[in-house]
Amino acid sequence: MNASTMSIASLAEELTSGDRRALAQAISLVESSHPSDEESAAELLTLIAERETSIPSRRIAVSGAPGVGKSTLLERFGLKLIDNGHRIAILAVDPSSRRTGGSILGDKVRMPKLSLREEAFIRPSPSRRSYGGTTSATRDVITLCEAAGYDTVIVETVGVGQSEIDAADMVDLFLLLVMPASGDDLQGIKRGIMEVADVVVITKSDLSPDQTNIALAQHRAALQLMQPSRPGWQTPVVSTSSVTDDGLDDLLRVVYDFFVNDRHADILRTRVAQRLAWFDELLKHRLFEVMFKDPPILHRLTEYRSLVFDQNMPPTVAVRSFLHHLHVNITERS
Amino acid sequence: MNASTMSIASLAEELTSGDRRALAQAISLVESSHPSDEESAAELLTLIAERETSIPSRRIAVSGAPGVGKSTLLERFGLKLIDNGHRIAILAVDPSSRRTGGSILGDKVRMPKLSLREEAFIRPSPSRRSYGGTTSATRDVITLCEAAGYDTVIVETVGVGQSEIDAADMVDLFLLLVMPASGDDLQGIKRGIMEVADVVVITKSDLSPDQTNIALAQHRAALQLMQPSRPGWQTPVVSTSSVTDDGLDDLLRVVYDFFVNDRHADILRTRVAQRLAWFDELLKHRLFEVMFKDPPILHRLTEYRSLVFDQNMPPTVAVRSFLHHLHVNITERS
Repeated sequence: MNASTMSIASLAEELTSGDRRALAQAISLVESSHPSDEESAAELLTLIAERETSIPSRRIAVSGAPGVGKSTLLERFGLKLIDNGHRIAILAVDPSSRRTGGSILGDKVRMPKLSLREEAFIRPSPSRRSYGGTTSATRDVITLCEAAGYDTVIVETVGVGQSEIDAADMVDLFLLLVMPASGDDLQGIKRGIMEVADVVVITKSDLSPDQTNIALAQHRAALQLMQPSRPGWQTPVVSTSSVTDDGLDDLLRVVYDFFVNDRHADILRTRVAQRLAWFDELLKHRLFEVMFKDPPILHRLTEYRSLVFDQNMPPTVAVRSFLHHLHVNITERS
Repeated sequence: MNASTMSIASLAEELTSGDRRALAQAISLVESSHPSDEESAAELLTLIAERETSIPSRRIAVSGAPGVGKSTLLERFGLKLIDNGHRIAILAVDPSSRRTGGSILGDKVRMPKLSLREEAFIRPSPSRRSYGGTTSATRDVITLCEAAGYDTVIVETVGVGQSEIDAADMVDLFLLLVMPASGDDLQGIKRGIMEVADVVVITKSDLSPDQTNIALAQHRAALQLMQPSRPGWQTPVVSTSSVTDDGLDDLLRVVYDFFVNDRHADILRTRVAQRLAWFDELLKHRLFEVMFKDPPILHRLTEYRSLVFDQNMPPTVAVRSFLHHLHVNITERS
């Protein structure tokens, strides 16, 4: 254990000095589900947490339907952020495909210029979805990237279902991309994700200025009717083109606006709430998992679920009765 | 205990014979949080579950923003259902107000004719939200109403936040009410609840036929773009007036369409999934609660949450470490 502890300490050291290879290795560690790796990962995360992170990090989720132009916008926007002195990490959370080895080539194709820059770290984060539907690793990966000196961490997610809701719960700013294509004008609204969007970006503005203007007006009108995504923040709508770079400066400005100093306290408050919610959710989930480790209990649980399935027992009664047949004994270790 | 068991048995007997007073008493029992009542409630629900319910019940949620006209529509629609031979129970889930004693008068005002009918049972269900954000009692109340011979159970909920999502998870059909008022046309879409709506009702069609037609067209167009709420079901949009009764027959027809025989298997499948999901959620939650019962553990939990709060420990590590300091011992009772 001592050798492992030493290597974890040196891994933490290398990572915080900005070593990309160490960061990649650390990410693999926290994404692993091997019990021994989990212990090392906890050790690493503890070491990281003990260091004072001086940089004010920005956590941004970028979401949008397939084909909306996430990668091309991230390529252009990422280069602009680098021009402004930032170091950016892009974590792709793609629930539809399990990209592994081939992903590096994939990212080189998706973001050809950005992937060559030293100031950018691009990593497809496998969406390890544990039982219960929560992405466990991405939150820790964000922390690792920040510790490695990336002041802007972008979580890229496909706009389908739970993954973008999960992403919204782990970032400061949620950026929603929509296309001004015919009929698709309401895509962001209809998916019900518009209400958590902090910035709406109409992409591909070069294709049709008319459509773009309609989309801008429609989304601004819709947002007027909605609750603000955060207190004291009015969600701006901007249009961008990854071909002409039009609107990228507008986007940069609204992102900077969001992270201005007088919103700093709000952002920190949100992060605290996110951390506590995640702690509770994970704990609840892990306690549930304990039961599955004991074959007789798993068997009993299956029996009760089967009673509920067949409608021979109401869920309320089944839970009560199941717990009644268990010794649930949670005590402090002496 | 024996006397209590006997009285629970007779309560079940009276309830299933259709006695309204027994139903009201049974509902109070399952809504109570006294430990002794919980035991009686479990007993009652078990007795109810053992009986064969011959009637094919319909579970309908009715949701919409305040002022959309839920009560007036329910009054008119409820009377129409009764004319068609149904017995209906209306359970109001109102998260914003804790209506208790005065509610009976309230319901008489809200649904003056319906509340006088013997075929209707109207009950405000207190939204007892347990830690974790789940409405515990309403699902059991639905079962009780069905056992008492009400073949149509309507869960009425205000269209704000979690309550309507909860409601959607406990019914067969989700009915969304929207107003054709200026600017509010997108209200159902923007709240993100449109995607779970099985039927959309544009209310108050008498106020402005033009606005109503616009709203009908808009919602139909929006729904075309969306995933169907259920496989093989295309969400219809109808307009109604509770003043002229216009459209009530259309509404009745689409509700009947939804519950036709060839969709019966789908509905039962959904109910099974709802029951199992509820069982898992409740069990997870109850296990979590066990920890709060032991003062030293609660104290330790508070310490860990405080470490997470202050960002001195990442949530993943805190959960791991907290569980490590506990004896989580879940075994079968011998």
